[in-house]
Amino acid sequence: MTGFTATDRSMMNRAIQLAKNGRFTTSPNPNVGCVIAVEGEIVGEGFHFKAGEGHAEVHALAMANDKAVGATAYVTLEPCSHYGRTPPCAQGLINAKVGRVICAMSDPNPQVAGRGFDMLRAAGIEVQVGLMEQQARALNPGFLKKMETGLPFVQLKMASSLDGQTALANGQSQWITGSNARADVQAFRAQSCAVLSTSQTVIEDNASLNVRYSELPSWVQEHISESQLRQPQRVILDRQNRLSPELKLYQCEGQVVRVSSHDADVLAPEVAGQGICLTSTLRKLAEKQNINHVWVEAGATLAASFFKDKLVDELVLYLAPKLMGADGRGLISALGLSNMEDVIDLLVKDVRMVGKDIRIIATPVYK
Amino acid sequence: MTGFTATDRSMMNRAIQLAKNGRFTTSPNPNVGCVIAVEGEIVGEGFHFKAGEGHAEVHALAMANDKAVGATAYVTLEPCSHYGRTPPCAQGLINAKVGRVICAMSDPNPQVAGRGFDMLRAAGIEVQVGLMEQQARALNPGFLKKMETGLPFVQLKMASSLDGQTALANGQSQWITGSNARADVQAFRAQSCAVLSTSQTVIEDNASLNVRYSELPSWVQEHISESQLRQPQRVILDRQNRLSPELKLYQCEGQVVRVSSHDADVLAPEVAGQGICLTSTLRKLAEKQNINHVWVEAGATLAASFFKDKLVDELVLYLAPKLMGADGRGLISALGLSNMEDVIDLLVKDVRMVGKDIRIIATPVYK
Repeated sequence: MTGFTATDRSMMNRAIQLAKNGRFTTSPNPNVGCVIAVEGEIVGEGFHFKAGEGHAEVHALAMANDKAVGATAYVTLEPCSHYGRTPPCAQGLINAKVGRVICAMSDPNPQVAGRGFDMLRAAGIEVQVGLMEQQARALNPGFLKKMETGLPFVQLKMASSLDGQTALANGQSQWITGSNARADVQAFRAQSCAVLSTSQTVIEDNASLNVRYSELPSWVQEHISESQLRQPQRVILDRQNRLSPELKLYQCEGQVVRVSSHDADVLAPEVAGQGICLTSTLRKLAEKQNINHVWVEAGATLAASFFKDKLVDELVLYLAPKLMGADGRGLISALGLSNMEDVIDLLVKDVRMVGKDIRIIATPVYK
Repeated sequence: MTGFTATDRSMMNRAIQLAKNGRFTTSPNPNVGCVIAVEGEIVGEGFHFKAGEGHAEVHALAMANDKAVGATAYVTLEPCSHYGRTPPCAQGLINAKVGRVICAMSDPNPQVAGRGFDMLRAAGIEVQVGLMEQQARALNPGFLKKMETGLPFVQLKMASSLDGQTALANGQSQWITGSNARADVQAFRAQSCAVLSTSQTVIEDNASLNVRYSELPSWVQEHISESQLRQPQRVILDRQNRLSPELKLYQCEGQVVRVSSHDADVLAPEVAGQGICLTSTLRKLAEKQNINHVWVEAGATLAASFFKDKLVDELVLYLAPKLMGADGRGLISALGLSNMEDVIDLLVKDVRMVGKDIRIIATPVYK
């Protein structure tokens, strides 16, 4: 962990920035960046853009060409050691005769898990691990959580007025948040493997839950073209088989995964009491659908269930600058707590304005 | 408004920063700063610290001494033209033979209101007005609102969980916000002329509602010493004469103003229906108690009344990073709106972390 220089940090930081270029497209693969440098001068760099296409190291080595001999390779994740859709990157680095490999972290994928480092070391290449590991982990919350726990990373979106209301007491409602916040939601959808909701939400709003390129924020549009846009899977909890084919949900591009306890052609998770077991659903989504990052958009009842089951990794809360008065619909009324000890504590990771609304990103601290 | 140079801006900015030194002590006087400069070099500067003590211009002129001759004076507010507790500053500037006076804004005080400028101009001094007026106005929201409308500036404090709750459904509660937020509240109290609450809040919590030096944030302690601390008046709405002398409220330094509709020895505002008319109360506080800046700390019912009467100038909302589930006590349940058109819109002025909590400052936009 020690012995890294300012140059090392600067190079790894560049590799991390490069890795981010893949965040709308690599799924279910991780985001990875690579920099090849000789005495602090970059001679090659690359990132993974899309599953099935070249890994970060391949692009960087191609750019460096014979300047890679004796150079230092900075990679945000352990180079792979197995033949997947591409040959192992560890072998590529060996063939190119790099002198040293510095990695931010090892790959928890059981097909790699240190074997990449072993291959490099066996070939006489110096390997150092742990530089900017925290930042590198943040590139791939979904990939890492699935590899480490078998469950996908879950971001749950909620929106309310400043006083925690989603509608008036009489049910009257409207778009609560502004257009910038809605565009921000599109960006979150675009970064996820799956958008999860309920048939009730889908039917009430006739929601398509897809990513609409024209509604993405401009920073995302500058990042990917419309043809590069990958639609997340849309996972709909539909206990009572209420989804019907004329819904807008089915009228647009992208896969729909229906989750029901009655049906054989769907995921068929375990049933918990009256409802669908969320943990089982998520586990099956990871296993069968290769989903490692889920964006949940639903009402107060489902949100409360996700929190009760301790499945929310990150809350993304939009607060519209309005006061609606309570006796309306509470943000998460179904939580139904009766003890202060049961209150869910969170750590705020980020607060900022998104247009005229406030966006809070917070991590639950489960007891 | 035009013709100001970068040097002018830099000097006025310094004057505005100086003015802030008075914000815990000048009440009910405005915060004012003054810089005297010769060709962009500061030869004198000062600020108003406490009512009855020297004005900003007096200190700056004393420091500049004979260097003031022909110099430019930058003042955040129009120099006074009347004999109050101190002689008129406009005359001081004339006597010192300054060549030019640049002011951020005129003084809405009817005793001044342009007469300061007239005096200066009549003495042959060049006067320019309007440099950084917005920033200068922000120094004195209370002083300006009282002068312009007869009502004090009202800041209303609320605190809730992220989902807008102040207690669980069964009434169970606890300190919702952390110690940094509570210290922040002490700083707001210290900057106000009055802390306003209800007898119910005072009795329930046996609250003293005073400023406790030891609980102020360190940035405030670095600003004023304990002996310089000025206690805001504590204004308690006590419709049913429930306040009794053994309460902690009466056991500490500082004036208590009881507001009741029955009692002759208090403010005796108009009665509105069953309750005390808040507008009348505020107007009388401004008139009789010289209060220009009120900090309201109370429960959901009073908060709703202040919003309904369009009396809140600024909402200061602390959100604790917790989810409590609704069916609890809503932040502002008494608002009781039944139409989306009645929803209170706000403009967010500031969002930041205060310790582990989020603080939102927002301005209602009344329809």
